Amino acid sequence: MTDVTRNVGIVGGGHTKWGTREASYKDLIQEAGKATFDDTPNVGPEDVEGLFVGSVQPERFAFQTHVAPMVAELLGIDVDSMIARTELACASGQAALRYAWLAIAAGQLDTALVLGVEKMNLPREYAPEAQASMANVMDREFDGVNGFNAPPYFAMIAQRHMHEYDTTREQLAQVAAKNKTHAASNAFAQFQSEVSVDEVIDSFELSPPLCLYDCSGVTDGAAGLILMSEEKAREVSDEAAWITGSGQACFSGNSINNLPSMSAWPQATTAAEQAYDQAGIDDPLEELDVAEVHDCFSISEIVEYEDLGWVEKGEGGKFIEDGRSELDGDIAVNPRGGLLGCGHPLGATGVSQALEVFNQFRGTVESDRQVPAPETGLIHNLSGSASVHSVMTLSRERP
Amino acid sequence: MTDVTRNVGIVGGGHTKWGTREASYKDLIQEAGKATFDDTPNVGPEDVEGLFVGSVQPERFAFQTHVAPMVAELLGIDVDSMIARTELACASGQAALRYAWLAIAAGQLDTALVLGVEKMNLPREYAPEAQASMANVMDREFDGVNGFNAPPYFAMIAQRHMHEYDTTREQLAQVAAKNKTHAASNAFAQFQSEVSVDEVIDSFELSPPLCLYDCSGVTDGAAGLILMSEEKAREVSDEAAWITGSGQACFSGNSINNLPSMSAWPQATTAAEQAYDQAGIDDPLEELDVAEVHDCFSISEIVEYEDLGWVEKGEGGKFIEDGRSELDGDIAVNPRGGLLGCGHPLGATGVSQALEVFNQFRGTVESDRQVPAPETGLIHNLSGSASVHSVMTLSRERP
Repeated sequence: MTDVTRNVGIVGGGHTKWGTREASYKDLIQEAGKATFDDTPNVGPEDVEGLFVGSVQPERFAFQTHVAPMVAELLGIDVDSMIARTELACASGQAALRYAWLAIAAGQLDTALVLGVEKMNLPREYAPEAQASMANVMDREFDGVNGFNAPPYFAMIAQRHMHEYDTTREQLAQVAAKNKTHAASNAFAQFQSEVSVDEVIDSFELSPPLCLYDCSGVTDGAAGLILMSEEKAREVSDEAAWITGSGQACFSGNSINNLPSMSAWPQATTAAEQAYDQAGIDDPLEELDVAEVHDCFSISEIVEYEDLGWVEKGEGGKFIEDGRSELDGDIAVNPRGGLLGCGHPLGATGVSQALEVFNQFRGTVESDRQVPAPETGLIHNLSGSASVHSVMTLSRERP
Repeated sequence: MTDVTRNVGIVGGGHTKWGTREASYKDLIQEAGKATFDDTPNVGPEDVEGLFVGSVQPERFAFQTHVAPMVAELLGIDVDSMIARTELACASGQAALRYAWLAIAAGQLDTALVLGVEKMNLPREYAPEAQASMANVMDREFDGVNGFNAPPYFAMIAQRHMHEYDTTREQLAQVAAKNKTHAASNAFAQFQSEVSVDEVIDSFELSPPLCLYDCSGVTDGAAGLILMSEEKAREVSDEAAWITGSGQACFSGNSINNLPSMSAWPQATTAAEQAYDQAGIDDPLEELDVAEVHDCFSISEIVEYEDLGWVEKGEGGKFIEDGRSELDGDIAVNPRGGLLGCGHPLGATGVSQALEVFNQFRGTVESDRQVPAPETGLIHNLSGSASVHSVMTLSRERP
């Protein structure tokens, strides 16, 4: 090793429009790459030393592997330090960001591109293959073959949480309405219509109690970030989102039939505590201003309020009901619109979440969804059966 | 960040038998995991804080993604620090090892399991899907559809190298004969028959000048490593392979039609120079004792002698002919048997290479292929169109 650990900042980033896109996997990569470099005028492809790609199933959605070098080619990057793709299902984007941060922190390189991408909407003739692929995210042999695609599984979590803690159908719908309303003013979001609580409850019942609007979308999209060491960052930008902490945890019982609880995610708590500890955050409810958490389904965000350590177990429903996760609440949660509003192109979500926190810090988001002067942020992803949780903390002030 | 960068050592590892196995993807994971913990009696699943999995196409070969948490479940590991899978095609195992090393070096954790795995031989009814998958490793839309699977592409490299540098058919065959002879005494190897130069040349002509024995196999297999920070390593073991350097490089023209040369791999030179620089290796030919390099085809190893900086460009053929890569030569190259002898379960190869260097250091390999008292080693992988090269250096002595 050639250096001590160092401060690392996000200094730029870019986004494709997310949705059902008339665009290939390669098109999305190029669009996000261009947006990222356009946003970071003092950094070009020639400055990038390391490339960290988050993408889940290009083997099935795009019939391609070895995708990180393809990103290098499409964006004109000669990597001379580190390159790979990272897969952790729905947390793949954050996992790529984590490795880029580590590589810079440990002194292996100074400038990295993180790019998350997924192309999920395929031509109709490929659709059965793509649909079957989503069962692969769970343990295919135990869970997938028994119909445990995501919606029925998270519906069971909702049922159990409602049973144990008197969480209400309305509280679930309030999460969806909040996030979809944020997304309505996010130009990059897949779903850009304001939605009321009643409209959520009246939407098509998919897997009770979850209706269509309680579920995130099937989305094509990509997003990119430029990360730099403190020394380099000072040369190119006055503004950055500094990475202050990181945590991950995975329960050894990943298959649904091995999980000890359907209503609690202790790995979220473990991951968050690690990140808070590294960041020096003693009271997250007091100190966090903005959080992008993994609302793959409306119930998820409620469990996360609790298991990320913001309120007592069982109090998550009341947290949304009391408006404490609104833009002007205790913590502004998912001002981007979350997965419910933006959609969820698997490998891109974590990257987009981090970019949102940076954009909130620098005040470049649409005014309707700007959090008032945020200084401290968090991103969170769960993956698979929610036996795995990933958390990072970000700060506007250099640590 | 909580620590300065630290020394990291490989303290144990294990291997499945490689070959056409009557074993599932999950079976291979469990077999390699058990072998790894059996080899490291003072470390159990409960000690593992981070899990780094290398695997390329489980989506196509095993119809599964989110595979790192599946490994955690199968081996009984509760990860409480870091987890993800890494994909860089044929270099995926080394990429996972690199991230584990970085995570420990940067102070995120003390004990990691690295596991590489690929199940490539499928039941006959799935074989077309598996075969098609190998074209995915190249750029499918440019190269794969034009028949540029690996054998014809590396045959072109051989033709060009023979044309430019008078490399001979016999020299290619000498590489294959050397490595297959090493593999003959490696209990884990897929191919365990000694093969002569004449037998290589007389084997089935696959893509001229490459014959069957010039090509690595289609292999099921897995391998694991335990990595520890210096502080922890001292507690559990007197022996380790210390990671001293690392380099990667990727040319922006990944598609074969964009490569500037068919006979030189400048990215191998860039990657090796980075690793040598970090490791303080001034004269690799003098200082390296053992090297596991990516002999996916016999021609590859000849190009690598040159582009890893051991001999002048064009002198690779003479290097094998003069016996300088034999066990008692200047550098013992592929004493494990290489990809030609061991087979090449994509995500497992880099992990197995690092384990071999450690086993050579501690003198636990079969005596027929033991290198005399090696102190310094190297592992090398190429991936895709060989536009990407990955190198790590290892030392028996703590840096």
